[in-house]
Amino acid sequence: MEQEKSGCFSAVCGSKKNAAQKLAETARDLFYRHGIRATGIDEIVNEAGVTKPSLYRSFGSKDELVTACLRQAADERRVRWNEVVSRSAGNPRAQLSDAIASFAESSCEDASRGCPLTNAAVEFPDHDHPVHKLSHEIKQEMRQALLDIIKQLPAENPEVLADGLFLLFEGAATSRNMFCGQGPITALVPAAEALIDASLAKSPAPAA
Amino acid sequence: MEQEKSGCFSAVCGSKKNAAQKLAETARDLFYRHGIRATGIDEIVNEAGVTKPSLYRSFGSKDELVTACLRQAADERRVRWNEVVSRSAGNPRAQLSDAIASFAESSCEDASRGCPLTNAAVEFPDHDHPVHKLSHEIKQEMRQALLDIIKQLPAENPEVLADGLFLLFEGAATSRNMFCGQGPITALVPAAEALIDASLAKSPAPAA
Repeated sequence: MEQEKSGCFSAVCGSKKNAAQKLAETARDLFYRHGIRATGIDEIVNEAGVTKPSLYRSFGSKDELVTACLRQAADERRVRWNEVVSRSAGNPRAQLSDAIASFAESSCEDASRGCPLTNAAVEFPDHDHPVHKLSHEIKQEMRQALLDIIKQLPAENPEVLADGLFLLFEGAATSRNMFCGQGPITALVPAAEALIDASLAKSPAPAA
Repeated sequence: MEQEKSGCFSAVCGSKKNAAQKLAETARDLFYRHGIRATGIDEIVNEAGVTKPSLYRSFGSKDELVTACLRQAADERRVRWNEVVSRSAGNPRAQLSDAIASFAESSCEDASRGCPLTNAAVEFPDHDHPVHKLSHEIKQEMRQALLDIIKQLPAENPEVLADGLFLLFEGAATSRNMFCGQGPITALVPAAEALIDASLAKSPAPAA
């Protein structure tokens, strides 16, 4: 009986989870392609094939659905980042090159229209809004991850190099959307590599 | 009588122009502070103190009002750019430094929340939408203006340098919004200067 109950509960949980997952997947896609404010709740539930009460049972509000989508995007990015930097573990210079190349590659995908976190912060400019706060928090984490690698290198000024690369990444993401995949984004790899080389060449304790 | 008519016509024109100007000013401010899609027509006409029919007489649609606001922002940017680069006319290296410093200064203003054109393209991701098309067109012009200066310098690869600087500018604008004025934007000037110096140092025909 206990098992039956548990099994039954699992099934309910599973079905709830599936509805929530389906909603999050559909919402992420629509938010990313059309923009968050341009996408209404009705469109999301229609496309996901679920009811509106089901959405509110899973997420409470549109803002909660948005933050759930951004957390999902951040999780995937974290996994990709760790995968990329683990390829050249112990070689921070190569880790940077791998990270830049991977960013350039994913930014140039046909469906890319920039970074969902950056775009969300544009649509929610109020710094106290949960969507803006979450985007900012995740970007801080990404900036720190870049700095952690650079601090292992004899860079002239690690903070300036990390932030310079961060600006190039951010610029590449928005330019991807603005220029429809062509244009300035093609300079990401050579510009980022030149910035790293210049910083290492000026280091007070140059690499061997 | 002719003069009276003309005077009367002028007065009507003047009043129309004032209403249109007031609407555009109010809309620009609201669009920039809260986002374009987050700002409704009702809010604009209420704040501008004009009627809704008056808005539609002047602009036809919200999209037209948005593009009028973006054109105004682009005109002001063009004036500022020309003013800045005219200070060191004939000295392209100094023109670049002046343009970078001016961009960093204006991006760090308290009220800044990034570039209105970049933000508009995020809110209107469809490349065929008039708002996206106009933003893209103006960005192309800005990119070309940067390249025109760089082509006068013995840079290693003028396109890569121009686009690298363009990415830094774009990244600085979005980071300004994301990080509330702090953070990566502080690296704009040193990173941009390092990129220029590195490109000039590697030039096949170095500057004297």
